[in-house]
Amino acid sequence: MPNNVLYAQSGGVTAVINASACGVIQTARALPETFGKVYAGKDGILGVLREELIDLDRESEETIAGLRHTPGGAFGSCRFDLGDPDTHPEQYRRLVEVFRAHDIGYFFYNGGGGSMDTALKVARIADEMGYPIVSVGVPKTIDNDLACTDTSPGFGSAAKFIATVVREASMDVESMASSSTKVFIMEVMGRHAGWLAAAAALAQQSKDSPPMLILFAEIPFDQADFLRRLNDVIATHGYCVVVASEGLKGPDGKLLTVAQSHDVYAYTQLGGVAPMLAGMIKEKTGHKIHWAVADYIQRSARHIAARVDVEQAYATGAMAVRFAAEGHTGFMPVIRRLCDAPYLWTVDRVPLEQVANIEQGMPRDFISEGGYGITEACRRYLRPLIEGEAYPPYEGGLPRYVRIRGELLEKKLPAFELK
Amino acid sequence: MPNNVLYAQSGGVTAVINASACGVIQTARALPETFGKVYAGKDGILGVLREELIDLDRESEETIAGLRHTPGGAFGSCRFDLGDPDTHPEQYRRLVEVFRAHDIGYFFYNGGGGSMDTALKVARIADEMGYPIVSVGVPKTIDNDLACTDTSPGFGSAAKFIATVVREASMDVESMASSSTKVFIMEVMGRHAGWLAAAAALAQQSKDSPPMLILFAEIPFDQADFLRRLNDVIATHGYCVVVASEGLKGPDGKLLTVAQSHDVYAYTQLGGVAPMLAGMIKEKTGHKIHWAVADYIQRSARHIAARVDVEQAYATGAMAVRFAAEGHTGFMPVIRRLCDAPYLWTVDRVPLEQVANIEQGMPRDFISEGGYGITEACRRYLRPLIEGEAYPPYEGGLPRYVRIRGELLEKKLPAFELK
Repeated sequence: MPNNVLYAQSGGVTAVINASACGVIQTARALPETFGKVYAGKDGILGVLREELIDLDRESEETIAGLRHTPGGAFGSCRFDLGDPDTHPEQYRRLVEVFRAHDIGYFFYNGGGGSMDTALKVARIADEMGYPIVSVGVPKTIDNDLACTDTSPGFGSAAKFIATVVREASMDVESMASSSTKVFIMEVMGRHAGWLAAAAALAQQSKDSPPMLILFAEIPFDQADFLRRLNDVIATHGYCVVVASEGLKGPDGKLLTVAQSHDVYAYTQLGGVAPMLAGMIKEKTGHKIHWAVADYIQRSARHIAARVDVEQAYATGAMAVRFAAEGHTGFMPVIRRLCDAPYLWTVDRVPLEQVANIEQGMPRDFISEGGYGITEACRRYLRPLIEGEAYPPYEGGLPRYVRIRGELLEKKLPAFELK
Repeated sequence: MPNNVLYAQSGGVTAVINASACGVIQTARALPETFGKVYAGKDGILGVLREELIDLDRESEETIAGLRHTPGGAFGSCRFDLGDPDTHPEQYRRLVEVFRAHDIGYFFYNGGGGSMDTALKVARIADEMGYPIVSVGVPKTIDNDLACTDTSPGFGSAAKFIATVVREASMDVESMASSSTKVFIMEVMGRHAGWLAAAAALAQQSKDSPPMLILFAEIPFDQADFLRRLNDVIATHGYCVVVASEGLKGPDGKLLTVAQSHDVYAYTQLGGVAPMLAGMIKEKTGHKIHWAVADYIQRSARHIAARVDVEQAYATGAMAVRFAAEGHTGFMPVIRRLCDAPYLWTVDRVPLEQVANIEQGMPRDFISEGGYGITEACRRYLRPLIEGEAYPPYEGGLPRYVRIRGELLEKKLPAFELK
């Protein structure tokens, strides 16, 4: 009897993480001589620790196929990292108990750099605890900060959404600028790296077209310089579209929103750069301002996913399983770019050690000299990642997304209390 | 020689106002025995007063056809109302001078209730100043608050965007709720009427599914009651999705954002209900919260326009011209609903007096008894308005929108100074 497969989702979800799930599940099912049943952890590794395993045999083929066009994390995700094996050995003993109880031979963990560390820790169980588990990471993050891969599944679709709505909103602002709003600010995600802010530049149809000013997480915010440029842009174009990274930092290296949160509102999470900038610009210039904060909308916008992103999400899931079937373990599939235009790519793999807990920033030469735009190299890199459309089916005017039944396997072990 | 046609756009633009322009222009061109050349006012009535008339003969057929799928206001819009004829007679004298100088016999003004008042004032020029002008309003507003019409072109597409992204973001939140964000708040436009907030309810796939709590502009915000319900929803579902109208008011009838703006940031425009609620919920409950503000994104989201909305926008533009060709003046085309399901509609017309400066609120029986949801009657009304997809063409991964050349007619008059 071949061993069973356990798949789980981790970290912030994306518009296409379920497409990776679809790739994993369909590929494992297509190789019944290698893989037994396919289960999913409810809410990521937490569900594994709690022995909450979703029985995918009770999901229809249609539901599994529908994951390819369904955003969010269909099995639940989590923000939780395994403890250090030295200080939390009980967590690892528990994992082995759960794996053994359900004949799990393969573990696929779908997430970002932090989640790859979890996959790596599980891989080490095989050697250190003598339980033969194949542990594989499947890449995912809208932040595009995973190492060793051309891009991270999830990024391209968020980038396509951002570039599209910035183009659309800019046309709106331009229409009204002569007698109304002169400044529009859109805040995008990206705590440390400005990849999503950079993607907004793809909206530009010519050199000077909107967004005119991009505020990157990597470039310390210089208020005086920014206001000078803002006024220049308004003098030239009649309006200015600004895209700001949620991770924008002041000259002191502190996040703008955290630094000023006591002045703004009782709120210390990230987000809120746009209203803060709006208040400042209003005070300093008197211009009429509008602002938007896309937040989760940008990372769940499956309705405008990039086809290439959906394909890469599916392919990395599928190849994770194929490489495992070939006997590999402790790796993450990566995208290799073969050519910019036409965009040609293939799936390779790297050891988890090379990606676990590593954040890949944007190269400095991707940001233009002044610090408010992207370079041609960046544009060449980004352009293919938003290509193609992959519309979901619609019903009654809205995307028809699937929902799993989510029935759990019968538990075989006593409950486990997380310490 | 038939008289010339002047078309202009007014007020906040929409994803489909250019589809109405397309309907006006193509229909007028198809009736060369009735209509001469077709011009467009740059930036609405302001361009007419300034004698800034765009020569549409210099735009290609492709560009005019492309307006059907292009958001924003292609000719520029304005926030400007004509003065009272008694106190500002010079504005009306100027309009007649401009009309006469360019042989304008037909004026089509595309806007909301306030703009219909401008169209009405222009219509009265014919009698009061003896200049024979046919003046027609073309309906437009995402707020859905125009009187006498089943819906306003622009609303359906904004509603479809909102319902879609709320459905998508809700799936994201649900995935993460067990170990991360428990509350997601999305702020939507609508200063006085909660139509767009109501549209978010279309995202619901069953009675209890998200968005669980909708905060309408019409219902005074009761903080204690809201927090009680929020906690109930979280206890039952593990998370709560809230949709809040930008026009949310406190028990004193004052806008929440304006009332508290000195505490929040130096900013008195509308917008900012979401971060305000987030701060309050965080303080009172400690839950992790995310929030989004859609702002202009929602009214320019042509990439996910409702097909029926595009068709109605085009049809009201086209019928404005047809009715004018039949000899009518001083009217606005309206949508008449013939049947809910399947949605059947036709275009009729009403005198401008019946729509000018009138705001049509949401019937109270469209809001559910508790005040946080919509009734079945509201759902039946809204559902058909978001039906159908009408994707724009894409190029390089982004919608390919048209841009007019915008060359102005040679001026024949001295400059006019607005007082």
